[in-house]
Amino acid sequence: MKARVHITLKTGVLDPQGKAISNALDQLGFGGVNSVRQGKYLELDIDETDPQKVRASVDDMCAQLLANTVIENYSIELDG
Amino acid sequence: MKARVHITLKTGVLDPQGKAISNALDQLGFGGVNSVRQGKYLELDIDETDPQKVRASVDDMCAQLLANTVIENYSIELDG
Repeated sequence: MKARVHITLKTGVLDPQGKAISNALDQLGFGGVNSVRQGKYLELDIDETDPQKVRASVDDMCAQLLANTVIENYSIELDG
Repeated sequence: MKARVHITLKTGVLDPQGKAISNALDQLGFGGVNSVRQGKYLELDIDETDPQKVRASVDDMCAQLLANTVIENYSIELDG
């Protein structure tokens, strides 16, 4: 089963990388970009096929390794 | 209007960062993880409200700055 994980900075946490992208877009002539927030995106391919177990397992992975829960939120989607 | 962009490595392109995450998960005792692919996720907040114009504009941004189209694919989703 495939799991897709989005890891994003919590609201209020500064995102200098997003700010740099925003500035670069501005310099390239793309106006009207108010803000850019950069996050991470992970695709995991997991042997287990029970959606509940996969979700619980990926949730553990995020809490222990993938996300820094002090400053980041994560969301998990499962594919077929 | 908000645009969400996923940037992922093309199939066949090696992903050492994903491999490192996969190994780390294994060492933490998470078995059954076949593969991990890491990508980027961007949220853009754009003044323009016409979905067609926003999509065209974000497509240009991806081609020019956000993605390396030699080794990366990108997909664009628009919100409200």
